Amino acid sequence: MALLVCKFGGSSVASMDKIKNVALRLKDMQSQGNELVVVVSAMGDTTDDLLALAAEIGDKFSTREMDMLLATGEQQSAALLALTLNSMKCPAVSLCGWQAGIRTDGVHSKARITGIKAERINNELATGSIVVIAGFQGISPQQNITTLGRGGSDTSAVALAAALGAERCLIFTDVNGVYTADPRIVKEARKIDRISYEEMLEMASLGAGVLQPRAAEFAMHYNVDVEVLNSFNNESGTIITEGSKMEKQRIVSGIAHDLNVARIALFDVPDQPGVAMTIFKVLAENKINVDMVIQGGMRSNRNDIAFTIESDELEKALPLVNDVVMKIGASGMSYGKDVAKISIVGAGMQSNPGVAAAMFEALADANINIHMISTSEIKVSCIIDETEVNKAVQALHNKFRLEEAE
Amino acid sequence: MALLVCKFGGSSVASMDKIKNVALRLKDMQSQGNELVVVVSAMGDTTDDLLALAAEIGDKFSTREMDMLLATGEQQSAALLALTLNSMKCPAVSLCGWQAGIRTDGVHSKARITGIKAERINNELATGSIVVIAGFQGISPQQNITTLGRGGSDTSAVALAAALGAERCLIFTDVNGVYTADPRIVKEARKIDRISYEEMLEMASLGAGVLQPRAAEFAMHYNVDVEVLNSFNNESGTIITEGSKMEKQRIVSGIAHDLNVARIALFDVPDQPGVAMTIFKVLAENKINVDMVIQGGMRSNRNDIAFTIESDELEKALPLVNDVVMKIGASGMSYGKDVAKISIVGAGMQSNPGVAAAMFEALADANINIHMISTSEIKVSCIIDETEVNKAVQALHNKFRLEEAE
Repeated sequence: MALLVCKFGGSSVASMDKIKNVALRLKDMQSQGNELVVVVSAMGDTTDDLLALAAEIGDKFSTREMDMLLATGEQQSAALLALTLNSMKCPAVSLCGWQAGIRTDGVHSKARITGIKAERINNELATGSIVVIAGFQGISPQQNITTLGRGGSDTSAVALAAALGAERCLIFTDVNGVYTADPRIVKEARKIDRISYEEMLEMASLGAGVLQPRAAEFAMHYNVDVEVLNSFNNESGTIITEGSKMEKQRIVSGIAHDLNVARIALFDVPDQPGVAMTIFKVLAENKINVDMVIQGGMRSNRNDIAFTIESDELEKALPLVNDVVMKIGASGMSYGKDVAKISIVGAGMQSNPGVAAAMFEALADANINIHMISTSEIKVSCIIDETEVNKAVQALHNKFRLEEAE
Repeated sequence: MALLVCKFGGSSVASMDKIKNVALRLKDMQSQGNELVVVVSAMGDTTDDLLALAAEIGDKFSTREMDMLLATGEQQSAALLALTLNSMKCPAVSLCGWQAGIRTDGVHSKARITGIKAERINNELATGSIVVIAGFQGISPQQNITTLGRGGSDTSAVALAAALGAERCLIFTDVNGVYTADPRIVKEARKIDRISYEEMLEMASLGAGVLQPRAAEFAMHYNVDVEVLNSFNNESGTIITEGSKMEKQRIVSGIAHDLNVARIALFDVPDQPGVAMTIFKVLAENKINVDMVIQGGMRSNRNDIAFTIESDELEKALPLVNDVVMKIGASGMSYGKDVAKISIVGAGMQSNPGVAAAMFEALADANINIHMISTSEIKVSCIIDETEVNKAVQALHNKFRLEEAE
């Protein structure tokens, strides 16, 4: 008998019909002898509806009160799922975050889980019930309701799997798993059966959004096996696990791309200590993340600096950067949302030199210009023109023969 | 500085505009130096919307899960009111029933408050905040969320006022208070300034629905002064208090009427011990409350029995009563929803004989037939034809000169 933690996102519980499908699937899993803990997000539009009500009040909110408001969405879907299971003669009980013992810090709207007191859950499991837990929420040391921020329900599920010693954490979503590339771009893209935590983290933060990066981090830290799978069919998904548990390490596991990239370049920046700092400090103070940076220090005493940020942040960043241009006496700037990031990810890269070179070669063969490059131990990323993304993904997928079964 | 508990029902918080009005009123009360604890019901339609979702599942529900579902409505309105107060620079914090320390028994969907641990509320008040509490809910010894059933938010408010030693419990509603008769029927009907708990209880259970009977009971038991007043104007309302605190006891305080009455009569019931019991036992087993009963034991060995129940229960009662008619050998039955109950209520009645006679006289002068009569120490009720109700209310209001100021 295995203990499984299952997480269903908002689209999987968006209507009573979908909740019934989820309940049928859980009943089936239970009849196969599994003990089940289920984490649910709020029904499709609930959170947006609540945000719309709050928007009528103004635009500056107490995050404590917003947490109190938003946490009701997950409580509702948890209760509705438990009611549906009960109607199928399947014993089930719903629990809020505080009832499930999910302790967090007190940082409202983006709290971090600090521990789980699993006594209540274990007692309910011992009665033979399916335990349905409201995701995305916990309780602070001050006994306030907290929410975990973006991707919170994934993190709830992985943390519960760790605390309960579950055999696996199943993340049900609307895709079949993690693919070697976006199947909408590469028709030979192949579902990856197993991927390491490190690779998943790179894929997740590079835009392959099936598992939230924080949840992947949590899984890596506590060594929880996670399976990402489709809630609308019965195919097996992608298992995210320790690299050492995998039979072999692929050199390149997948191609990720990210269109949410904007570039900013400053021309003729005086080559003095502290100048780069001035720019990046202003951006950091305004909570704008800078991703890639290149500084072409080739000329005698002046040079250009270029960097990328998220597209969404461009409007906010431009006036700040313009001030800096004036202040430091650069000759001008250019910017645009016309670029994208394309990356190859693979744990085997560390021990195989020449992978980056193969990537550049493939892009060159396809006549694609590379504007910027960054690398880590298990990935290589390039900034290219946005219009070239589909061609680049396809070229790299061919180059590394990702369509071939492992 | 007075501590006040204020309760706002679903119609007072039905939209964000109405919530803003409530917030303005509270801010004003706070600026007059009052400490405020506020109890809110769910926004207008929230509870009905949630019930509609549950209805898609089936018609047999786990009351534990329904409590989990429905309790979110009050949590949302509490959070939205606190957010609105905050936006007006008015410190406020919302609390669920469990956070506010509202302990109940474990009878889901109609739990009773067993005690209030007021530590958290007192701590929040000490910071100068308005404390907004989700009404209608509490927490059971098993750490489950419970709801209090009908009129629950009124009861939450009165119980909190008792536990906190509040100076007064203000119940905001959509009428100006308790009237000497329904103002839609009697245009000279006068708002009553003060009324005793006992009188209010009779008025409340007789259909003058401004305060739930259970809340009135609670107020009497814990000796809490309650004021019922209008949330949409600034007039003073009706104060419900101890009879001994009132300057004088009126003989008749008000006229109550109730259209939700049906009559059932059984003819020629054998005059044997246990026969009446057979009828009323069957009804009790089916949770149908019998209100008035008359048994006209005038003839030698057979007699008729007539009684009243709530109209809503008639369809359910008829087959049960028909079975009894067969079984005991009565000669037949008649029934109808064409009757109503009209009552005079007044604490001074106890020491003034002749009040009932005056009532019968007034009805006779107006050519109104009385079918049944029942009396208690502070009220006299008559069953009359439903079509005569308006005329009867007016006649009694005139007879006892209730239009005259006290």
